Amino acid sequence: MKKSLLIASLLSVSFGATAQQALWDKTPVASPQINPDTTVTFRISAPGALKVGITGDFLSPKTIETPFGTNQVPDTAALTKDSLGVWSYTSPRLKPELYNYSFVVDGIKVNDPSNVYLVRDIASLTNIFIIDGPESRPYEVTDVPHGTVSKQWYKSAYLNEARRMTVYTPAGYEYNVSRHYPVLYLLHGMGGDEDAWPTLGRATQILDNLIASGRVQPMIVVMPNGNAALQSAPGESPDGLTVPTTQLPKTMDGSFETAFPEIVSFIDSNYRTIPDKAHRAIAGLSMGGFHSLHISKQYPTMFDYIGLFSAAITPRDGAVSPVYEDFDQKLAKQMSLSPALLYIAIGDKDFLYGENKLFRLKLDRKKYPYVYRETSDGHIWKNWRIYLTDFLPMLFKK
Amino acid sequence: MKKSLLIASLLSVSFGATAQQALWDKTPVASPQINPDTTVTFRISAPGALKVGITGDFLSPKTIETPFGTNQVPDTAALTKDSLGVWSYTSPRLKPELYNYSFVVDGIKVNDPSNVYLVRDIASLTNIFIIDGPESRPYEVTDVPHGTVSKQWYKSAYLNEARRMTVYTPAGYEYNVSRHYPVLYLLHGMGGDEDAWPTLGRATQILDNLIASGRVQPMIVVMPNGNAALQSAPGESPDGLTVPTTQLPKTMDGSFETAFPEIVSFIDSNYRTIPDKAHRAIAGLSMGGFHSLHISKQYPTMFDYIGLFSAAITPRDGAVSPVYEDFDQKLAKQMSLSPALLYIAIGDKDFLYGENKLFRLKLDRKKYPYVYRETSDGHIWKNWRIYLTDFLPMLFKK
Repeated sequence: MKKSLLIASLLSVSFGATAQQALWDKTPVASPQINPDTTVTFRISAPGALKVGITGDFLSPKTIETPFGTNQVPDTAALTKDSLGVWSYTSPRLKPELYNYSFVVDGIKVNDPSNVYLVRDIASLTNIFIIDGPESRPYEVTDVPHGTVSKQWYKSAYLNEARRMTVYTPAGYEYNVSRHYPVLYLLHGMGGDEDAWPTLGRATQILDNLIASGRVQPMIVVMPNGNAALQSAPGESPDGLTVPTTQLPKTMDGSFETAFPEIVSFIDSNYRTIPDKAHRAIAGLSMGGFHSLHISKQYPTMFDYIGLFSAAITPRDGAVSPVYEDFDQKLAKQMSLSPALLYIAIGDKDFLYGENKLFRLKLDRKKYPYVYRETSDGHIWKNWRIYLTDFLPMLFKK
Repeated sequence: MKKSLLIASLLSVSFGATAQQALWDKTPVASPQINPDTTVTFRISAPGALKVGITGDFLSPKTIETPFGTNQVPDTAALTKDSLGVWSYTSPRLKPELYNYSFVVDGIKVNDPSNVYLVRDIASLTNIFIIDGPESRPYEVTDVPHGTVSKQWYKSAYLNEARRMTVYTPAGYEYNVSRHYPVLYLLHGMGGDEDAWPTLGRATQILDNLIASGRVQPMIVVMPNGNAALQSAPGESPDGLTVPTTQLPKTMDGSFETAFPEIVSFIDSNYRTIPDKAHRAIAGLSMGGFHSLHISKQYPTMFDYIGLFSAAITPRDGAVSPVYEDFDQKLAKQMSLSPALLYIAIGDKDFLYGENKLFRLKLDRKKYPYVYRETSDGHIWKNWRIYLTDFLPMLFKK
């Protein structure tokens, strides 16, 4: 081979066969194209399709009937076809936010072939894009120092298995080798896993950006798998390439909460932590908020900062565990030790709103202090990113 | 809300709106379904589609014309539609291997909606599945202790920026805190990045499995980004959610090779390494093999084990760098220091086969020892997984 051909050859065939073909297809269409006026144009080449739509969380919700009652899902907008068979749709002007979307081509949900950025939410993959602005800037990768993200296995004696967690260490951890850090334990919801906060929650970007701004203390953030019946996220365990599901045993049965000190002990052994209550926080969304509430109450000298994001409060019917016994007494004990922060946040359309309201009434009656944030919308990742961004600056400031 | 409804509610709405809708669709079809006879049935529900095909690396290749000459790509097989609008195709019996595939629905490449497992190869996403057997077992997550995988940033003074790498530490690293480990530096090809070996290359699984078998020494494996013009994989840098491309400046211009000792220094400072030549290896595929050749030759006292997987050998036209000068003299110097292993592997249909043959002739003429492996097929990930699996047991055995 002539040397002058080498670069061309490397460009063309140093990848899998499918990629080769993709490279030699006609120029792919640009999608999503974020326009200067913050409208977004989506395109897909589909000359043979009869009908192409787009669904995403930037479209108004519509109400549908489900086995569990009515619920709101994003509407679908129609794309129109040009003479070359390229379908397109331009959105209204969008506010700064991280959005997700999928195409629907002749009834099939299709990810955007021009956009490699996907997030998995349980068994569903959707494309993402970001409209830049002050509200979304924390979710972007910006030109600031970046922390390290590790997928790590620890041994759980209580659950008798190895389990996977994500650990974030802040920028500088590798260079400031005598510095010790506070720790936030950040928990996912039902059906989620140790990959949820770093992907759907943009936790890595939020931490990098807020720490770099000086508004948030450099901290270690630990995101363990909170499903006691799973060792890890789907595909990362000996179960193989299974279909992700929420239909798991041992969910909210007290075992994850009971075993939690093993995680704290592993982190304190392997990272340069400040291993005391004043330098530990725990927070989570939905089931993870439920875990945060019950773990912090069960081990009242462990955490000084507690965050409940759209949290479930009440154990489900039939859940029997010492962790769930004597709720009011344990809460009284925890509160008597004056935690630095109890933070509660929920959307005004969240199906757990009523339960949270009852819990706040209980706190009010007992004059237990807490910080409360209420946002619009329901039980969605947009809110959990907002709550994390709001919660982090309050930590480790005592 | 009644408590008995809580679990149902959490199951149904503790995720993004798109996922909610996906959960309430009719039961998704099972795909891919690996049958006991090792045929595989693929299914997609597409009542409105006129034509559905499947393409993947388990199908025989066909020859196509490209701007760079003829090349082989996988063929496409047709699915057939049943009365419910579900299209299906059953493959021939497949040998144990990790395979990739995509559907083609009315001309559009579509990922399998029933399979959340995708790998990205530059700008192309394909679904994967594994046929179990002795040859593919190293690529599976099995019930063995797992190593930790970290996405980490280091400072490059030479390139004047922070850069991202993947670091694998073997199972037990967190528990055997006085043990020090040898290090393999494992480099990707052009268009790849620090995510390529852990995803397409199944490096994490291969290492976990071979180390657990006792055939491979526990080692640290460092997978840096090898494109000097990029700080990181797409989407992980301040460049934003860009379209991945191979059209990068500074490719194979000597700068990555020149700066390489910074990476070794960072690793030796932050991990429990054995920081000497006898406990360092470097290997890579394609451009990464080229890097391994030229880095190990430029710094001849740094690495005792060198692996060239489908490697480019000759600098491209116009590449001017001190690294590429005096090839024969530097090679002679390196060989005079008796490296423990020079390993060369390539497929018999690889476009770099001829160049590797010339390099081997040079080694033969000078009586420089090396180990050579030749496989079938071309410049594809299947071969690189095979070479890594073959290469690892030879390391750190001197």
